[in-house]
Amino acid sequence: MNETIELLQNHRSIRKLKDEPLSGDVIHTLVESAQMASTSSFVQAYSIIGVTDRPKKEKLAQLAGNQPYVAENGHFFVFCADFHRHIHAGEMEQTDVIPAIESAEKMIVAVTDAALAAQNCSIAAESMGLGICYIGGLRNNIEEVSELLQLPDYVIPLFGIAVGFPEAEPDRKPRLPLEGIYFENAYPAPDKHTEQLRAYNDTISAYYEERTAGARSDRWTQQVSGLLKDVKRPHMKQFLENKGYNRR
Amino acid sequence: MNETIELLQNHRSIRKLKDEPLSGDVIHTLVESAQMASTSSFVQAYSIIGVTDRPKKEKLAQLAGNQPYVAENGHFFVFCADFHRHIHAGEMEQTDVIPAIESAEKMIVAVTDAALAAQNCSIAAESMGLGICYIGGLRNNIEEVSELLQLPDYVIPLFGIAVGFPEAEPDRKPRLPLEGIYFENAYPAPDKHTEQLRAYNDTISAYYEERTAGARSDRWTQQVSGLLKDVKRPHMKQFLENKGYNRR
Repeated sequence: MNETIELLQNHRSIRKLKDEPLSGDVIHTLVESAQMASTSSFVQAYSIIGVTDRPKKEKLAQLAGNQPYVAENGHFFVFCADFHRHIHAGEMEQTDVIPAIESAEKMIVAVTDAALAAQNCSIAAESMGLGICYIGGLRNNIEEVSELLQLPDYVIPLFGIAVGFPEAEPDRKPRLPLEGIYFENAYPAPDKHTEQLRAYNDTISAYYEERTAGARSDRWTQQVSGLLKDVKRPHMKQFLENKGYNRR
Repeated sequence: MNETIELLQNHRSIRKLKDEPLSGDVIHTLVESAQMASTSSFVQAYSIIGVTDRPKKEKLAQLAGNQPYVAENGHFFVFCADFHRHIHAGEMEQTDVIPAIESAEKMIVAVTDAALAAQNCSIAAESMGLGICYIGGLRNNIEEVSELLQLPDYVIPLFGIAVGFPEAEPDRKPRLPLEGIYFENAYPAPDKHTEQLRAYNDTISAYYEERTAGARSDRWTQQVSGLLKDVKRPHMKQFLENKGYNRR
């Protein structure tokens, strides 16, 4: 196992970060690493906003559901799906690019491009000994987040990444068994799933029991059912359409 | 610059790979690395299909628009958005999770989860000296790809990754200038974009001119306008809805 693979497999999200700004050089390296990720047909359909302004960070922390590490960290990145610059590109070439950009297909492209870049940024940060935590909570109040960052049409703030020197070292959380997410040549029959989920529930319950002296013993199926019992962020479909995505 | 960052910044897509199967151990390591990526609220909303069956690989290569490296490689992964197992989880907990899964929000979650895992897989592969190429072309004929891999509802094949020993070493393609995709605290004014795109056009034209002895000198704005002048994959919206995504 080489160093990079060890790093990848040693990931954990860090929710307690030193409130001490990263240097400009470090931020530069993280963004350059993000940029070298693969991008669909070279469209580079994303932007990154680095938030350094203290009141803005505090506002974002509140909008993300009062997550203090959105304000207290070394740097806060917001990763956005972005086809805005392609509208300018189309204008420069007298081409109407809007119908294509408004397709569901291009939404998939932009979300994927942004996520690949974000993961490169995260790995680069972790390789420097920094901790990271993805913040999907920005989508709780996505309209307000967009206004705060002055995002125009065709730009969607997808998630944030808080980066900084770690002040906690949580345990590595066991993932689904490899056989539960990786299949050869075809998707497995449904009964296979239920069997694997039962075994995984035991793993996850044991993980929590050990770490809480028996106070907590959640099953994974219980956690995800709790999470999925209500429709969260029901505004997303309309928001995407308003911003010019997912219209056709 | 540490080794991992050097690796990230040295990425290029490899479209000529040795047609020699990767070992089971290597595949295992790649999938385990993928699994350790961050995942939204621990939902792990993706699956990976490894395609080893020769006729299936050839069929996929054809469905992806006759891309030979989909069949000829060391291993071919298909990354899927997957909330299928969460339906089973919901059943095990007597919870109706379907309305939440069918929301646009959960589509964003699943695409992001799959992309973060895919990027970990790619970086792990590159760290072993393997080459990779993402294959969005699977979405050209997404219905047929889904049937071929026997994907049930709530599973969407987003893209493939061809992995293998590289048989070519293309040049590193210059990305948008850092100031063109990274902004501090707020999105920039529109005129800023046009100015940067002009400068970037010069960079990209020079890149092609140098590599084709002047035969080719595409501007980036020309490439993306060409790509976006027609609505590609117009079936995506209906396909997503048919499979249970993006319905509300």
